[in-house]
Amino acid sequence: MKKTQYVVSCLSALALAGGAFLLFPSLALSDNDDQALIAKANALFKPLPASSALENTELTPSRVALGKALFFETRVSSDGRLGCATCHNPAYHGADSLALTTGINGKVLARNAPTVFNTSLLIAQHYGGNRATVEEQAYKALLSPVAYGNTSNEQVETKLTQLGYLPLFKAAYPADAKPVNVDNWGKAIGAYERTLLTPAPFDKFLQGDAQALSRPAKLGLEKFINTGCAGCHNGVTVGGQSYQKFGITQDYWLVTGSTPKDAFKGYDKGRFHDTKDEADAFIFKVPQLRNVAVTPPFFHDGSVASLPQAVRVMAQLQLGKQLSDEDVSHIVSFLESLTGDIPADFSNVPKLPSAPH
Amino acid sequence: MKKTQYVVSCLSALALAGGAFLLFPSLALSDNDDQALIAKANALFKPLPASSALENTELTPSRVALGKALFFETRVSSDGRLGCATCHNPAYHGADSLALTTGINGKVLARNAPTVFNTSLLIAQHYGGNRATVEEQAYKALLSPVAYGNTSNEQVETKLTQLGYLPLFKAAYPADAKPVNVDNWGKAIGAYERTLLTPAPFDKFLQGDAQALSRPAKLGLEKFINTGCAGCHNGVTVGGQSYQKFGITQDYWLVTGSTPKDAFKGYDKGRFHDTKDEADAFIFKVPQLRNVAVTPPFFHDGSVASLPQAVRVMAQLQLGKQLSDEDVSHIVSFLESLTGDIPADFSNVPKLPSAPH
Repeated sequence: MKKTQYVVSCLSALALAGGAFLLFPSLALSDNDDQALIAKANALFKPLPASSALENTELTPSRVALGKALFFETRVSSDGRLGCATCHNPAYHGADSLALTTGINGKVLARNAPTVFNTSLLIAQHYGGNRATVEEQAYKALLSPVAYGNTSNEQVETKLTQLGYLPLFKAAYPADAKPVNVDNWGKAIGAYERTLLTPAPFDKFLQGDAQALSRPAKLGLEKFINTGCAGCHNGVTVGGQSYQKFGITQDYWLVTGSTPKDAFKGYDKGRFHDTKDEADAFIFKVPQLRNVAVTPPFFHDGSVASLPQAVRVMAQLQLGKQLSDEDVSHIVSFLESLTGDIPADFSNVPKLPSAPH
Repeated sequence: MKKTQYVVSCLSALALAGGAFLLFPSLALSDNDDQALIAKANALFKPLPASSALENTELTPSRVALGKALFFETRVSSDGRLGCATCHNPAYHGADSLALTTGINGKVLARNAPTVFNTSLLIAQHYGGNRATVEEQAYKALLSPVAYGNTSNEQVETKLTQLGYLPLFKAAYPADAKPVNVDNWGKAIGAYERTLLTPAPFDKFLQGDAQALSRPAKLGLEKFINTGCAGCHNGVTVGGQSYQKFGITQDYWLVTGSTPKDAFKGYDKGRFHDTKDEADAFIFKVPQLRNVAVTPPFFHDGSVASLPQAVRVMAQLQLGKQLSDEDVSHIVSFLESLTGDIPADFSNVPKLPSAPH
C-alpha cells in the first residue's frame, strides 16, 4: 500500500467512524466534554448536603419523630381533615397533584402546593417568600384561616394535649417547662422537614460521575445553561435561592392561561400581596427544580400541566426564546435527572398518639 | 396432731390462701378457668383466617399492587383530593378519627367512617349494609355524588388511562380486552382490602394461649359474654355478622346525644333509608369490634368519643343494664385485646403512576 493510499484509507476509516458517531450519538460526548460539563455545572449548582439542620439546632431522633407525627396529624385542623401531608403527600412526591391546593372545608386556595422535599434549603417559604423558614411556615399555618383554621395558640395546645402528645413533646424538648406549644410545633415539623432531602442522579454527576446522566440529559444541561435558565435556576436546589419577576417579555397569563383569583382581586402579583410595594408586583420566589418532573402541574397556580410546555413557556416568558422540540426534549431529560428517591421514612405513615380512654 | 386440728389448720391455710387470692388477683383465674374461658370463647368467636379471598378469586400480587395504588389515589375524585385512604388512613388505624366523615369539596357526611381493617369479612358494607362486598362498595363510591363525585364510568376510565394506569390494569387483568374499567377498579381495591386483616392478642387466646390476655381482659371477656354483648358481637369480627336495632330500651339519641341529620331528614334510621320499609327503622349492621379501642369516636355518627362511655351506652340501650365502673374497665381491657397490628404494607404509601410528559 502506498503512503497516499494509506492516508486515504485512514481518512475513509475516520469518515466511517464519523458515520458511526452519528449513528451512535451516545458516543458523541468525549470524556473531556463530560469533564468540562461537570466543571461548568459545579460553578452553577451544588450537590445536596447531608443535612439542612439550622445552626445550633440538633435534629434529634425525638424531635424528628415528633415532627413526623405532627406532619401526618389531621386532628389539629379545624375540620379534622387537614395536615401537612394532605398537601405534601408521599403518593405525589411530597406535593398533591392539584393545580390549586385546598385548605380546610374543601376550600380551593389560590396557589399550587410545591413539594416539601428539599424546601428547607430554599431562601424562604411560599411563592411570595413571606415565611422565612420551614419552622415559621409550619407554626403560622396553624392560625391561618385557609390552612388549619385555628383561632388561638391555646386552642392548638389544648388539642395537642388532649390527643396525647405531651410525652412526645416532653421527649423532644425536655428543657421546656411547658413543652406543648406552637413554637415547638414549628420546630419539630421543621426538624422533620430538614431530613426530607432527595439526592438525585444530578448530584452524582456534580460529584464527578459522568455516567450518572444520560446523553440527552447532558445535552439538556448544556442547553439549560446556554439558554440562560441557570441565571435564576441555580444553586443547591436549582432555583429557590432568589426572587424574580414572572413574565419578563409579556404578562405571564397570556402564555400560561392563568386566570384571575378572588384572593388577589385579579391576577396573582406575587410578593406584592405581602409587601404592597408596586416594585414587588409579579415578583415570585424562583421555584426550585428538584423533583419538578414528578410534581406536575407547574407554576404558582398549576396553570400548565405538561413539563415540555412549562419549559417552552419559561424560555419565552423569561428569556424571549423559542426552543426547538429537540431542545425542549433534552432539557426535560436534564430535569428528570433532578428527580430524587422519596425518602423511605416519608412514605411510612406513623401511628399517631391517641388520647387515653 | 389430732384429725380435727388438722382439718382446722387446713381450713385456716385455705382461708390464708383465700386472702392471698384477694391480695394477688392475678392468680385468681386457675388454669382450669382459663381453659373453660377459651372453650366458651371459641363457641362464640373465631380467630381471623389467613385470607379473606373470595372463592375462585386469586389475590395475585399484581391485583393487590394495583388495588393498593388505587386505594391511595386521589386524582380520580372530582375535587382531586379524595381517595379510599382519605377516610381509611394508616395514621388512624384505617379510619379517620372524625365523628362524621367528609366527602369531596369538604362536605361533611352523615355517618362515621369505620376502619377498613377486616371489613372484607363483614356480612355487608356501610352501616346500613347497602353494599354486599368491599368490591361493590369500592366501585359504587366512584359515582356517588358525596364520595368521588364522578358522573360516568367512562369519565373514571379516561382519568385512569390518562394518569398512566393502563400497564397496572393490564398486569392485573391480562385476560380482559379493555382492562381499565370500574369493575376492575372494584375488584383490585377489594383484592387489596382482603389482605388488610389484623390478628390481635384475642386470636392467640382463641387458639389456646391463655397468657395472650391480661387478667382484666379475661374478666372483661367473661363479663362481655355474661352481660349479653356477645349476642350480637360475635363471630370472626366480634360483630359485623348481623343486623340489629340500635336503641332497644329507648331511642338511641337520648343516650348518645346524636343529632338529626339533613341527609336523613331527621334521626338516622339505618337500613330504613335504603329499603324504605318501616320494619327496618333503626336497624343497623352490628359494627365489628376488632380495633374498636383505637378507632374512636364510636357509633354510626361518632356521637360518643369515650370507649368506656360507649360500653355503658350499649349496655343500657341494648340490654337494659347498668354496668359498674369495674365491669366497664374490664370490658374495655377485653376490647383492647382486639387491637391488631396495622398491616406493615398498609402504612407504606405507594408511589403512584404519573402520566408521561
